[in-house]
Amino acid sequence: MSAATTSSRRPVYFDCDTGIDDSMALAYLLASPEIDLVGVGTVSGNCSAAQAARNTLDLLHMAGRDDVPVAVGAHDFIARKFDGGVPWIHGDNGVGNVNLTTAPRGPCRQDAADLLRDLANQHDGALSVVTVGPTTNIATALAREPGLPSLIRSVTTMGGAALVPGNISAVAEANLGNDPEAAAMLLGASWNCTLVPLDVTLENQLFEADRQALLSAPTALVRAVGAMLDLYFDFYVPFYGLRSCALHDPMAAAIAVGAIRAARVPAVEIVMDTGSGPGRGQMICDLRGQRLGPVDQPGARHRVVLELEAPLGLHLIERLTRFNPPEALK
Amino acid sequence: MSAATTSSRRPVYFDCDTGIDDSMALAYLLASPEIDLVGVGTVSGNCSAAQAARNTLDLLHMAGRDDVPVAVGAHDFIARKFDGGVPWIHGDNGVGNVNLTTAPRGPCRQDAADLLRDLANQHDGALSVVTVGPTTNIATALAREPGLPSLIRSVTTMGGAALVPGNISAVAEANLGNDPEAAAMLLGASWNCTLVPLDVTLENQLFEADRQALLSAPTALVRAVGAMLDLYFDFYVPFYGLRSCALHDPMAAAIAVGAIRAARVPAVEIVMDTGSGPGRGQMICDLRGQRLGPVDQPGARHRVVLELEAPLGLHLIERLTRFNPPEALK
Repeated sequence: MSAATTSSRRPVYFDCDTGIDDSMALAYLLASPEIDLVGVGTVSGNCSAAQAARNTLDLLHMAGRDDVPVAVGAHDFIARKFDGGVPWIHGDNGVGNVNLTTAPRGPCRQDAADLLRDLANQHDGALSVVTVGPTTNIATALAREPGLPSLIRSVTTMGGAALVPGNISAVAEANLGNDPEAAAMLLGASWNCTLVPLDVTLENQLFEADRQALLSAPTALVRAVGAMLDLYFDFYVPFYGLRSCALHDPMAAAIAVGAIRAARVPAVEIVMDTGSGPGRGQMICDLRGQRLGPVDQPGARHRVVLELEAPLGLHLIERLTRFNPPEALK
Repeated sequence: MSAATTSSRRPVYFDCDTGIDDSMALAYLLASPEIDLVGVGTVSGNCSAAQAARNTLDLLHMAGRDDVPVAVGAHDFIARKFDGGVPWIHGDNGVGNVNLTTAPRGPCRQDAADLLRDLANQHDGALSVVTVGPTTNIATALAREPGLPSLIRSVTTMGGAALVPGNISAVAEANLGNDPEAAAMLLGASWNCTLVPLDVTLENQLFEADRQALLSAPTALVRAVGAMLDLYFDFYVPFYGLRSCALHDPMAAAIAVGAIRAARVPAVEIVMDTGSGPGRGQMICDLRGQRLGPVDQPGARHRVVLELEAPLGLHLIERLTRFNPPEALK
């Protein structure tokens, strides 16, 4: 699982605000033979960018992957200060108040935007980008290197609410809604993004039996994820009516890896509402004309995932519980 | 069916941009024993306010109801000029290019906002308002008479798209989206509105067999509605995949009459996007927290219809085909 043995795998840069479901997505990426995680950047969202980096370093250490560079990214958003995150969802430390094994290293000196730019140059068009937090680091990287899109193979972003209510306002989802200006830069750049909105992430859940399976997994990393879900499940009780959780970030990871495919993923016009009105932070997808089946709009560059070919939960649990590389802490 | 015999019926003011489905709604109101249509105001939308008044006068004449006052309302919207309507949907004359029997009278001297105000005063708290076009006249009436809400029993408005795509933009529906400032005034006034959005109106259709039933009806008015549907059905072929139509305006009428009830109609925060961004004209309903069942938000005054107890089509066809008052043209 070291970098030397993974050269045939697709390189992936992961941008996250780790976060319980970010932790699941990170573990999933580490457990996925299709890709090689070559770098992680963090951003404020579920917790601060610094805390997210600490969490990511520890999780990587538990997987025996102290080789993966972790860069701290934006603490504040483009148009406003970070306000402390959502400890009532992700715990005071972002990972459900679970104590992770402390990694022996710290983040790299570069910030996340520079790490992304360097990795993009290094991998020369082969790098896939997966974002599961506010896209502030991506916006910064685009500002510093406008030619970035030509160096990137694919962008997969967990964010937005197309035809379902938002989760930070009636219409805004947290990742894109916390930094609408950054999301607008992501969508305005000349790459083709795949958006993974609440419409699908809320329809894919883990339940208590899944959590128990994670708690019995052979690696300490996956058991820690199972432990984190205790708090996360509590948060979702009023929403789903039972202990369970949505699979926001793991879904973006699974779509990017290619192990789970979208059944309905039309290319449509997607823009951000960056105004100051009640729609601020909304990802507006033009889904007119889709009633009789998915239709790609002429000229549309971005795709929005509206339905999966298969439920994510089973696949995720299988992959995480079978994850057992020799270098991982047991 | 004359005014003298209808005193026990609830008085209704109807504000419309007649329009094929407006014509259906008008015929339905005339055929409904629960209410008495005491006045009609017209507004530009499907066609011009003047053309809508002409159509309404003719339709009322065909029903033997030359007693119902018809007032021309706003030609232009608050923030922009009327641009000619949608002849490719409703025909060059607004009523599917069908020739109606010409009424012997013209509209009243008042404009629609003044007619509404006078009727509200006259009926002293008993008047129900049904709007199926842009709400420009209602906004004008509110501006002239801020105390109007206290004189009105109920407001039922066809408009908005809550969790489905809009029909004039990705998120805006024609009635509210053509005049967002007027819709904001409607929603800002101190009455309780019932919004009937595309979410439900698109899920209730008429089909060719229904049209044939209308074409065989005993009154000329209802047969004319059947004839109009020929063009209207054409428009909907790309949307539904077959000749049929949505029941936008008749649904607001049926909800207001009370003959069809909503199964899911939560009271939620509803605001208009009156900005200049991509969300302009969107009716933003805060439908968070509704997954486990309808929940009224504390303090919310307006309700949004998301599901009916029974399909509208059958009820509508029954009422229209049985409509046969002695005064109607045969």
